[in-house]
Amino acid sequence: MQAKRVAIIAVGTELLDGGRVDTNGPWLSARLRALGFTVVGRLVVPDDVSAIQAGLAFFRDRADVLIVTGGLGPTHDDVTREAVAGWLGRAVVEDADWRRRMEADLAARGLSLPPMVFRMAQVVEGAEVLPNPVGAAPGQWIEVGGHVYILLPGPPPELQGIYQAHLEERLRRRAPQPPPKSVLLRTSGVPESRIAERVQAILDRSDVAWSILPGPARVDLEVRWTGPGDESVWEQLLERLRQALGEDLYAEGDVSIEAVVGQRLRDRRQTLATAESCTGGLLGHRITNVPGSSDYYMRGYVAYSNEAKVDLLGVDPEAIRQYGAVSEPVARQMAEGARRRAGTDWAVAITGIAGPTGGTPEKPVGTVHIAVAGPDGTTHRRFQFRGTRELIKEQSAQMALDLLRRRLVASGE
Amino acid sequence: MQAKRVAIIAVGTELLDGGRVDTNGPWLSARLRALGFTVVGRLVVPDDVSAIQAGLAFFRDRADVLIVTGGLGPTHDDVTREAVAGWLGRAVVEDADWRRRMEADLAARGLSLPPMVFRMAQVVEGAEVLPNPVGAAPGQWIEVGGHVYILLPGPPPELQGIYQAHLEERLRRRAPQPPPKSVLLRTSGVPESRIAERVQAILDRSDVAWSILPGPARVDLEVRWTGPGDESVWEQLLERLRQALGEDLYAEGDVSIEAVVGQRLRDRRQTLATAESCTGGLLGHRITNVPGSSDYYMRGYVAYSNEAKVDLLGVDPEAIRQYGAVSEPVARQMAEGARRRAGTDWAVAITGIAGPTGGTPEKPVGTVHIAVAGPDGTTHRRFQFRGTRELIKEQSAQMALDLLRRRLVASGE
Repeated sequence: MQAKRVAIIAVGTELLDGGRVDTNGPWLSARLRALGFTVVGRLVVPDDVSAIQAGLAFFRDRADVLIVTGGLGPTHDDVTREAVAGWLGRAVVEDADWRRRMEADLAARGLSLPPMVFRMAQVVEGAEVLPNPVGAAPGQWIEVGGHVYILLPGPPPELQGIYQAHLEERLRRRAPQPPPKSVLLRTSGVPESRIAERVQAILDRSDVAWSILPGPARVDLEVRWTGPGDESVWEQLLERLRQALGEDLYAEGDVSIEAVVGQRLRDRRQTLATAESCTGGLLGHRITNVPGSSDYYMRGYVAYSNEAKVDLLGVDPEAIRQYGAVSEPVARQMAEGARRRAGTDWAVAITGIAGPTGGTPEKPVGTVHIAVAGPDGTTHRRFQFRGTRELIKEQSAQMALDLLRRRLVASGE
Repeated sequence: MQAKRVAIIAVGTELLDGGRVDTNGPWLSARLRALGFTVVGRLVVPDDVSAIQAGLAFFRDRADVLIVTGGLGPTHDDVTREAVAGWLGRAVVEDADWRRRMEADLAARGLSLPPMVFRMAQVVEGAEVLPNPVGAAPGQWIEVGGHVYILLPGPPPELQGIYQAHLEERLRRRAPQPPPKSVLLRTSGVPESRIAERVQAILDRSDVAWSILPGPARVDLEVRWTGPGDESVWEQLLERLRQALGEDLYAEGDVSIEAVVGQRLRDRRQTLATAESCTGGLLGHRITNVPGSSDYYMRGYVAYSNEAKVDLLGVDPEAIRQYGAVSEPVARQMAEGARRRAGTDWAVAITGIAGPTGGTPEKPVGTVHIAVAGPDGTTHRRFQFRGTRELIKEQSAQMALDLLRRRLVASGE
């Protein structure tokens, strides 16, 4: 049987209380999709037999593979075994081999636990046991009437351990062949609707599925080729998209803009410093999220007060008095001062009003000036961002990285 | 109508691809639960009209309030409006007021966008518009046959902005009365199992439900009082918990540690500087996420290279040579140098190995030294964190804030 559609049911009242986030669903989804499966839906239900069974009923006609995560522990509220068995009209039985293995493991660790732990040796009648390499609750694989049911424990390391040891290969054999082609195209600094406008004529065809994913000052375009036909069709399509996006495209695939900028600096053996006011260190934080960033990132100045701008970066106090700390002259002086004092090839500066207070009619909240100083001079842009304080900081850092990227593209190669 | 049961449908193919994680569901769940609602289920579906409608059908008899998040943007794959309208047997119509508001906003920002943006002014016929304070797609509130349907845009800042401005009060009036008593107790620097050990004797009673939610170098304890009885029972319980947690408790309620530290500094009219190496600016970023932080946060030094540690903070090059950049003497000199050069009352310094490379047998990845310099001297702690690069940075910033908080508690009042 070749399976194409997968549904995931996450069991756990704590996931619905808002206290815990289900990370298993996204983790499994990414892997299943890479194998070529389509994840048709994910449902989170409480620790309740009828809720689990309602979820199974909901997905039965929508999916070929139903994965249920969680609810396989030892306590009274772990009811996934009972729910799935009941729904399939089967019994819950003890797996003698797994029980012996649990007993041996407890003995080896010198542990004596309450008898309830052996609930974890119980499985749906007829299930194949998928041994748990890091915990006591095994996974279960049940094939019935054209469907595969997979039960996995909720703790992420256990679920991941079972998946990697016993599930991935098994699922790969059921996956659609060949897996569909897809690409993630990442852009920065252009609104969602403009990106859509540029690509929709290219993508308006029946063998392509696409979606647009906006983030703070960035837009991702995800394109999947579902059609039959020659691979060259896909390659041509990709080439047309690259041309349509031009320099606004900063990466193909799951690569951050800070990694792209970092790679360019490393390739050119150039160095970078930052000077931040309203972002308070976020730009440096993002740059240093890239492993190995110490190769090119030397230092950052968080010049939050006016005095710090003067003292740390040599900004002219008269410029602050005349134009304000949030202004083009100050942004330029911050970038140039950082570059000069750090002795780096490049420096990026951000000064702005992140809010919620501090705005004026001339400089409302969201006014941000960004300057990039480099070997070929200093450039500047003024932005008017919207949103919360954190969102204005996010957009500022993103655009600072994007302006640096564009400068590196323009000056390099 | 008093509503008790809520279901949430998150719309977005990208959420099923594993490319994006749905954070809106958990965020809403936590708030709805605090109001006294029960979240009966969450479903993630692709950008597909029939999938959204199947979700609505699934939850209709299980919930009184159905919230649909996402799919309200301008592009062809944003189909939530059409799906909900179709399912309710209504039309999709343009909201003239909202369109005018969008036009005025675009004009004010000097932007001209493709006509498709005005899809965001379309609503389900009869819907009440919930203005979006930070974006173009408004929320929608529709009451039909004993149910409330709420449509919210997917970008978290927009969803949260609408919720806070227009939904929370409205939902509070529909919530079960009285809402159950609950408290969030936030601790830092103590492992999950130790926190559990300290509180379990207090909480092991039938009228209390509780959960422990660990995060990077922090543990939240959520306690709900479900029992009947006098309010004084709850107050006594709370008091016992406060005593059990002692100084490890930094906040009651949804307050960040950076806000707690900021409030203490403001109360004392004291100032702060930061000196960061491995966190690259994350500490300054977190401090400046608090509105008004410019009252006490003056500046930060991101001394990523050794040269920057010497040049910016006056660290003795001999100390770096002898002990290494990741060492107690260097952390102390960084903190003291930052305090002296910035002229602040307090300074916090972090130097460590965030990985994934750069570790040695003596100083493995995750080795982090944190120092706090203040009016009453300098203190230091060494940590051995585990996890990814980003997780080590997160834990480092959290513990730096926690050490400063403890110093402020010890020296103050």
